[in-house]
Amino acid sequence: MKALVYNGPGSPSWETIPDPAIEDSSDVIVRVDTTTICGTDLHILKGDVPSVKPGTVLGHEAIGTVVDKGSGVTSLDLGDRVIVSCITSCGSCQYCRKPMPSHCLAFDSTGWVLGNLINGTQAEYVRLPYGQNSTYKLPEGMDDAQALFLSDIFPTGFEMGVRYGRVTPGDVVAVVGVGPVGLAAVATAGLYGASKVIAVGRTRPRIDKALEMGATHGVSTNDPDWFDTVMGLTDGLGVDVAIEAVGVPHTLDQAFRLVRPGGHVANAGVHGTSFSLPINDLWIQNITFTTGLVDTVTIPILIDLIKAGRIHPEAMGTHHFAMDNMLEAYEIFSEASKHNCLKTVITH
Amino acid sequence: MKALVYNGPGSPSWETIPDPAIEDSSDVIVRVDTTTICGTDLHILKGDVPSVKPGTVLGHEAIGTVVDKGSGVTSLDLGDRVIVSCITSCGSCQYCRKPMPSHCLAFDSTGWVLGNLINGTQAEYVRLPYGQNSTYKLPEGMDDAQALFLSDIFPTGFEMGVRYGRVTPGDVVAVVGVGPVGLAAVATAGLYGASKVIAVGRTRPRIDKALEMGATHGVSTNDPDWFDTVMGLTDGLGVDVAIEAVGVPHTLDQAFRLVRPGGHVANAGVHGTSFSLPINDLWIQNITFTTGLVDTVTIPILIDLIKAGRIHPEAMGTHHFAMDNMLEAYEIFSEASKHNCLKTVITH
Amino acid sequence: MKALVYNGPGSPSWETIPDPAIEDSSDVIVRVDTTTICGTDLHILKGDVPSVKPGTVLGHEAIGTVVDKGSGVTSLDLGDRVIVSCITSCGSCQYCRKPMPSHCLAFDSTGWVLGNLINGTQAEYVRLPYGQNSTYKLPEGMDDAQALFLSDIFPTGFEMGVRYGRVTPGDVVAVVGVGPVGLAAVATAGLYGASKVIAVGRTRPRIDKALEMGATHGVSTNDPDWFDTVMGLTDGLGVDVAIEAVGVPHTLDQAFRLVRPGGHVANAGVHGTSFSLPINDLWIQNITFTTGLVDTVTIPILIDLIKAGRIHPEAMGTHHFAMDNMLEAYEIFSEASKHNCLKTVITH
Amino acid sequence: MKALVYNGPGSPSWETIPDPAIEDSSDVIVRVDTTTICGTDLHILKGDVPSVKPGTVLGHEAIGTVVDKGSGVTSLDLGDRVIVSCITSCGSCQYCRKPMPSHCLAFDSTGWVLGNLINGTQAEYVRLPYGQNSTYKLPEGMDDAQALFLSDIFPTGFEMGVRYGRVTPGDVVAVVGVGPVGLAAVATAGLYGASKVIAVGRTRPRIDKALEMGATHGVSTNDPDWFDTVMGLTDGLGVDVAIEAVGVPHTLDQAFRLVRPGGHVANAGVHGTSFSLPINDLWIQNITFTTGLVDTVTIPILIDLIKAGRIHPEAMGTHHFAMDNMLEAYEIFSEASKHNCLKTVITH
Repeated sequence: MKALVYNGPGSPSWETIPDPAIEDSSDVIVRVDTTTICGTDLHILKGDVPSVKPGTVLGHEAIGTVVDKGSGVTSLDLGDRVIVSCITSCGSCQYCRKPMPSHCLAFDSTGWVLGNLINGTQAEYVRLPYGQNSTYKLPEGMDDAQALFLSDIFPTGFEMGVRYGRVTPGDVVAVVGVGPVGLAAVATAGLYGASKVIAVGRTRPRIDKALEMGATHGVSTNDPDWFDTVMGLTDGLGVDVAIEAVGVPHTLDQAFRLVRPGGHVANAGVHGTSFSLPINDLWIQNITFTTGLVDTVTIPILIDLIKAGRIHPEAMGTHHFAMDNMLEAYEIFSEASKHNCLKTVITH
Repeated sequence: MKALVYNGPGSPSWETIPDPAIEDSSDVIVRVDTTTICGTDLHILKGDVPSVKPGTVLGHEAIGTVVDKGSGVTSLDLGDRVIVSCITSCGSCQYCRKPMPSHCLAFDSTGWVLGNLINGTQAEYVRLPYGQNSTYKLPEGMDDAQALFLSDIFPTGFEMGVRYGRVTPGDVVAVVGVGPVGLAAVATAGLYGASKVIAVGRTRPRIDKALEMGATHGVSTNDPDWFDTVMGLTDGLGVDVAIEAVGVPHTLDQAFRLVRPGGHVANAGVHGTSFSLPINDLWIQNITFTTGLVDTVTIPILIDLIKAGRIHPEAMGTHHFAMDNMLEAYEIFSEASKHNCLKTVITH
Repeated sequence: MKALVYNGPGSPSWETIPDPAIEDSSDVIVRVDTTTICGTDLHILKGDVPSVKPGTVLGHEAIGTVVDKGSGVTSLDLGDRVIVSCITSCGSCQYCRKPMPSHCLAFDSTGWVLGNLINGTQAEYVRLPYGQNSTYKLPEGMDDAQALFLSDIFPTGFEMGVRYGRVTPGDVVAVVGVGPVGLAAVATAGLYGASKVIAVGRTRPRIDKALEMGATHGVSTNDPDWFDTVMGLTDGLGVDVAIEAVGVPHTLDQAFRLVRPGGHVANAGVHGTSFSLPINDLWIQNITFTTGLVDTVTIPILIDLIKAGRIHPEAMGTHHFAMDNMLEAYEIFSEASKHNCLKTVITH
Repeated sequence: MKALVYNGPGSPSWETIPDPAIEDSSDVIVRVDTTTICGTDLHILKGDVPSVKPGTVLGHEAIGTVVDKGSGVTSLDLGDRVIVSCITSCGSCQYCRKPMPSHCLAFDSTGWVLGNLINGTQAEYVRLPYGQNSTYKLPEGMDDAQALFLSDIFPTGFEMGVRYGRVTPGDVVAVVGVGPVGLAAVATAGLYGASKVIAVGRTRPRIDKALEMGATHGVSTNDPDWFDTVMGLTDGLGVDVAIEAVGVPHTLDQAFRLVRPGGHVANAGVHGTSFSLPINDLWIQNITFTTGLVDTVTIPILIDLIKAGRIHPEAMGTHHFAMDNMLEAYEIFSEASKHNCLKTVITH
């Protein structure tokens, strides 16, 4: 089959490798019908993620069709169409039973296995260990494009941003960063009744996209008064919940500055350096700060909300490619801002 | 001043009585600018509420203006415009400190004092004990009509229905009964992300009102297939949350029949008789059943949500009267269905 | 093998039947090392549980040793010693993923499968469907007798009583009924910081047992002043949490009478008839009432607490038998009060 | 009256100043029967707390007797004996109504008013603004020494450590720092069912005190293997909850190193410098980190638990003084370790 292979830092290749086959009784082989590229994949290509060994097929997001399964797989049948979770869950360890499969103990204490520790979804076929615990059936009548971003980005914004941030009705929420994860938080903050959802970004097109996807206000940090503008949208004490969705110290600092006493800062960004936490100011502020890798346990909820018309994840799919143009998709996505690209939709 | 006085079972009178005056240092005297009538007031007039003694001014809902205050009142000034809570809260007892002022210990273990244990709000002026703990400032620019139903009915539907029912995103919610409390639950279930809000009523005009106020589906129990219709809106296992908003055994039974294993039944209706609970079926069903008098602690949240345009309580105010036509307002409201009346708005 | 077989209402038989064998890839065959009898088994023998068909081996509690497993079982090895949960969990359905395996959809919407829908644990061997999701490894150094009651009775008292009753530090808790489930609630209420745990029973030996297992006070309902005695242990307003652990209307009524406004009534008893719920009094009392079948998700927690010496479930094992004396064990347990028997410990 | 006055950085004086008098209708004047010194008072004397102006009487902890009250005070009578909360609560602002009086808006957004913004409790008399919301009645039969540490230190360890750290039954809890706040966390972690409470300190006498007050294990960081020792008390993944109770970067770092994925770090220490947060490691670890000033809302719970014999705060009172020896008490407490002093008990 054809697959996108990481060959060490630099450019990936789209090459022919052997088809995957059942190795364990819990395995499921899925034909990848639709996949996409994540910002993490770009980090891997830069060599920033040492757990990914050269020769690995990248990708941890997909809609697919079951084409083979191990003897232990009972709840999936050949031909079933599934949303592949970015998190692989053994279903039996202490973390999976919580359920917090983000830290499944089966693979080196992380649920992020696909396109990291084993071959991933940017290929014609993918082997999914613990397949029935690591997929969700695609409902009848739902398009691949509607469900594709439930693999990772939408649950990440919702779980790590909105739920970890414990948004409650009436809250003023600031989402710092309006890339895919930030937009997913913007699009789901209203599900817990936020009265204002303030998208804090830099450039206009993405802020406009946030307004389109559910933000009630958009503020550009290029505006020197941005901080006062956000505070002016509160009662002067700060926002109830600040969601960090970039992954650099500067934006995390913005989140901590915006939050009111008693509020929540939820980190949803991927960070590469440490952060100077102003604990000398914060110790007295009754702040809750959360971090985390997504569990994707909310996929069934998000499916119901798509069906109900309350969320529209497909709005993030700005650029479409056939799978054979995988390398072109990478080129576009690696300069996403330039191309006004949010997420790619790559079809078999 | 003029006031609506309960003279024992039968018709009330609109008569002249002495103006209220400060009696305790925590008292606030409010000029009643806008008030309304509650279903409970009709029960009182039938003699169903023995705690209400003849001679009592009825009413526990109002928007008013502070015209006098006791020496202990520091956070309110003369001229302040306030939402009068139907719950009087001393602020210091164990219940008020939880905060669960519905059971404030200052007045015989109930927070429902106005128009019950002391004179209420259907008058030109009313004395509010513990006035600063029992009112919320009306925000600048908010109309009386927008805020009036925050005194009681909107918080009741939201707190006793939606919050006690622990609605969470993606839930299918059935609201059994589409009077004012049921409609308030319908209008606020989406604040916790309900994917479907099914209004279960009898007659069409009210079901249509529910659809207008936020229900995604309306089902009439006059239709013999109503039960299957509701179940068909779920995955076949039942609704996640069933809210009872009528107050008779028949509708409470409907709520218990509709709920799925692991679901919630939240009672928001006022009941006059016992109920045959099918505990022989329910003991194994992991059901949570809740009851309660409103605390009105969500008034600040609801204010923010009105300002954000997410809720529109004023939609319930169907019939408007000048205060001098109080008796006519009672006549209309006592035959609310006939007049297609939900709530009255009675203005000074 | 030998097994205790239900042959329809009347006496069970201890007879030879074929050994169980692997039927599905998720199956585990366990040699039963230690088992016990549940009050539910007595109900079955009376013919009260129609789901149990004649010919079924009874029993849903055991400590055992894995002797065979299907191809899909990866987290258990032959020779592993396990606590068998009374709840069978497929691990993949919407209920198991919550996790609320009490309503696992794999077997007719109930997690109670063993000794009900299929052969159970009162036998030399038992087949466990979804074996790795339905067992917990017995820690090194823990006796069978310490862990045996984690199969059902201890989690039932803890989950359905203490946790569903939302006991919090400082609470006054009344446990109505001091059979095994009630005692498990008594023994675990302190884990959430109860300041008083009042065992409400009838006869002295069991009340004394409750005091031995963690109750701070014991009250006999044979004492005509029992109600005032319990209320006297509160501030006069009632208990914070009342746990029903008998399963008849009379005791459920006692629980509702004892609870304070804002309190919780948690049902842990198995009921055979409906209950006249005083909703005309309760609607205004802000009561939370819960029901349910145990999920056994707290078994890992209870294991840690046994190891820490904070709970001592083995104190419930009052009568010991060899497996060949199974019928004698049934005789004693069916007249438990007469023999001052709480739970039997039946060893292979 | 005599009072301990801060005259700017350096030594305090014990001098005669005018008696306090009622200034506002919510004021209560209390005769201080018993008081104590807090580590914060030592920080003030060093000049580290700029909000404290020279001339201020220090102290925010006391048991006292009501000797005068404003006209708005209804729930307290002259002669009532009260626990003075370190937090002054207006009872009416949005924070007090949550209730989160630590950020009461009445005094510059902080509930810490006594001995900071106005005269405090290290004096013969003290004026308490919003007196009835800022005190709790001392129960009949409870000694001053039993209740004194409920003013601040015990609620701080319990609320900021144990509750913010969301300890649940079975948890392994590490408390880093065994001064008064750390010991209060140690003494209350069992109220939420901790299976192990590991006191992590430096010197032996305090670690031994922790073992006496409820720790199950004590570990000295002077031991080079301390980290492995703590990890060995877990399943190798780390503790469920790490409570920081010192207030320096080094110990906060220890807390973050000890916690497992999915765990909680609760800060209860007072910090003077920023902290290098390893967000590059933590972003993926699903950690919840909390900070905060105590609300003291758990004082009623702690009272019940003292009465039930479940906690023994008086064990912290190691050194007793008459009020006239206030300066000597300061001398001893400022070298607490040398004198093996935990908390002073200073009696009128």
